[in-house]
Amino acid sequence: MYDIDKIRADFPILAREVNGKPLVYLDNGASAQKPRVVIDAMTRMYEEEYSNVHRGLHFLSNLATEKYEGVRDIVRRFLNAPSETDIVFTTGSTEAINLVSYGWAAPRLQAGDEIVLSVLEHHANIVPWHFLRERQGVVLKWVECDPDGSLPAERVIEAIGPRTKLVAITQMSNVTGTRVDVKAISHAAREKGVAVLVDGSQGAVHGPVDVADLGCDFYAITGHKLYGPSGSGAIYIRPERQAEMRPFLGGGDMIDTVTREGVTYNKPPMKFEAGTPGIVQQVGMGVALDYLMGIGMANIAAHEADLRDYASAKFAGLNWLNVQGTTPDKGAIFSLTLNGAAHAHDISTVLDKRGIAVRAGTHCAMPLMEFMGVSATARASFGMYNTRAEVDALVSALELCHELFA
Amino acid sequence: MYDIDKIRADFPILAREVNGKPLVYLDNGASAQKPRVVIDAMTRMYEEEYSNVHRGLHFLSNLATEKYEGVRDIVRRFLNAPSETDIVFTTGSTEAINLVSYGWAAPRLQAGDEIVLSVLEHHANIVPWHFLRERQGVVLKWVECDPDGSLPAERVIEAIGPRTKLVAITQMSNVTGTRVDVKAISHAAREKGVAVLVDGSQGAVHGPVDVADLGCDFYAITGHKLYGPSGSGAIYIRPERQAEMRPFLGGGDMIDTVTREGVTYNKPPMKFEAGTPGIVQQVGMGVALDYLMGIGMANIAAHEADLRDYASAKFAGLNWLNVQGTTPDKGAIFSLTLNGAAHAHDISTVLDKRGIAVRAGTHCAMPLMEFMGVSATARASFGMYNTRAEVDALVSALELCHELFA
Repeated sequence: MYDIDKIRADFPILAREVNGKPLVYLDNGASAQKPRVVIDAMTRMYEEEYSNVHRGLHFLSNLATEKYEGVRDIVRRFLNAPSETDIVFTTGSTEAINLVSYGWAAPRLQAGDEIVLSVLEHHANIVPWHFLRERQGVVLKWVECDPDGSLPAERVIEAIGPRTKLVAITQMSNVTGTRVDVKAISHAAREKGVAVLVDGSQGAVHGPVDVADLGCDFYAITGHKLYGPSGSGAIYIRPERQAEMRPFLGGGDMIDTVTREGVTYNKPPMKFEAGTPGIVQQVGMGVALDYLMGIGMANIAAHEADLRDYASAKFAGLNWLNVQGTTPDKGAIFSLTLNGAAHAHDISTVLDKRGIAVRAGTHCAMPLMEFMGVSATARASFGMYNTRAEVDALVSALELCHELFA
Repeated sequence: MYDIDKIRADFPILAREVNGKPLVYLDNGASAQKPRVVIDAMTRMYEEEYSNVHRGLHFLSNLATEKYEGVRDIVRRFLNAPSETDIVFTTGSTEAINLVSYGWAAPRLQAGDEIVLSVLEHHANIVPWHFLRERQGVVLKWVECDPDGSLPAERVIEAIGPRTKLVAITQMSNVTGTRVDVKAISHAAREKGVAVLVDGSQGAVHGPVDVADLGCDFYAITGHKLYGPSGSGAIYIRPERQAEMRPFLGGGDMIDTVTREGVTYNKPPMKFEAGTPGIVQQVGMGVALDYLMGIGMANIAAHEADLRDYASAKFAGLNWLNVQGTTPDKGAIFSLTLNGAAHAHDISTVLDKRGIAVRAGTHCAMPLMEFMGVSATARASFGMYNTRAEVDALVSALELCHELFA
């Protein structure tokens, strides 16, 4: 039984008002709010348990190290990775994907080698590959989705050619909520000896993840979208790929020895983690993932599926409203445009007056906006704490937009 | 008047005990503790004011953006940089120096070009340059310090040759506390058209910084050593150098447009900041810097100079104790070894029993350890909240080590 009232009570910010109305937070695709357990864990660490990690022997350093390193196994469980050494800590998906681009792809891909990616990708899963195109002549091979936002796995698999070295693909679009069958893609790519990076920035938030089952090589998550702190994150990297990677960020902790003449590197995953890490944020992310696992990702997915279906049915009755992405199994992420003159920014502004937070713009997914033929959308993205009543509030506010701008 | 009792009361963790004794926290060189204002600011943001930044138009997003972007001017004031657009946010010095290595040096330096650096450097200011040696044949030109830890500016300046493109130098050694005259170095290098990166990880913590006066091109700070949160930081980059840099991390926010064919980039400093940043940590760092400026960096420096002189006098009376780095103007950082069998780790363990936190090891400065001919030291590093009584406690505990291990 999914106790939505109890869950909402866990998130302090949900009790606040915005513009004199109860906050209706529908900007979860950009970043999620944090439960009290996460906030309290960080406060407690700074008040009572803080120190740098790894390099100390004193009480606080040992305590902080134990808590920090303990998060690796929490992430391992969250992703069902075989070993906690498969987990590299990052500051989020952006750093994670750049780690793969600089550490794995840059030294391996030659001019003319291809990276397959889809028009659904977020800029975080585009720009690092454009760097390789600009700097070393790597070719980006784009796969289009269908008008309803769906991306058939076969189309991605068919795009894999003899020069393809990597498929970089999202598990869920942050614009349309489209789910991509990254398991089918990963298994087919693996048979062809091609690596697969899955951007799990959204996918991991909205349902259970099992990287062992998916069969991908890289799976990136970002803590702040997972109800954890800003600046937290991790990436699963298959051991064979770790062995192929050179280090990315250089500094303390990732080395074994440093002399004037050269460097020898620490073992993975430490080889890929330089300097003092985001100690307290990572501990906070661990608490957030434990919180999510306590409620159950399948339960969260079921709750959000109900919101999706409820919202979809309501939206279907509004003939002046366009929803980008209409696949039935999509995540509860709705990119909206209104017929007539209403710009996405105007919609956002009107909604904000009613305390409803949505995001207006291109959502860091310009190639998808271009594909969809829109310059911007207003995006309502739901999370574990949202309710049907909030869908109703959204619909009512959209009706006001229609009246004002139609 | 420096009210040490009031300052100590600002730091919650200082009230705790370790192993039944009041905590004596002398591991500030690794990371500093946080005042309540910093902790509270982060808690409040997560409880009431959290959202992603930049891309939203709703109330919480505007609020978070205002607070986050407001930190840029705080950093600017802290460093006396000419403009807040000179300030690039990072997760700390390690990322900052890697940004310069990947973004400025890698595309500009050819095989045989030289980087001048000193044996005082922290691994964060060594390994990114070793990458360039390994990957593209850049030559690292090492400057030695004197046996007392001092590093004459002239020696660094003399090392600059016709192939030198960069001087990468610390303002204060994290091992010996040595202060380096980075102003003299910067001005001389500038006359020769050579860029200077100053690692301010320690220097900025222990005295006022004025990058306009120093004349350096890059100045990196790390928030967690500045009594701010883990995972926070910034780097001053002179506008001419920003113009020479290519982007480093790719993702959202750092772009202007993204298409399938290519990318155009945002203006600096945003060009160098990819993805959702460490929003709440950076806000916390801003509060920490305001707190420091409120007390006054010169006042903090004077307090720490008193601790340094008091400790130096006490240590001078212990003929079985060796202090690495004895320059009179050094920071209050003492790397200690004991004559006889006591290993640094044993010293740390004994001190810990008395609640005294010091760090044992190589302090991410292996070339310096090699130069000093020691395998490890126990380092007592003082901060703004330490006291003469804590020096006494340290000396007493060292005497116990001497008894136990001599």
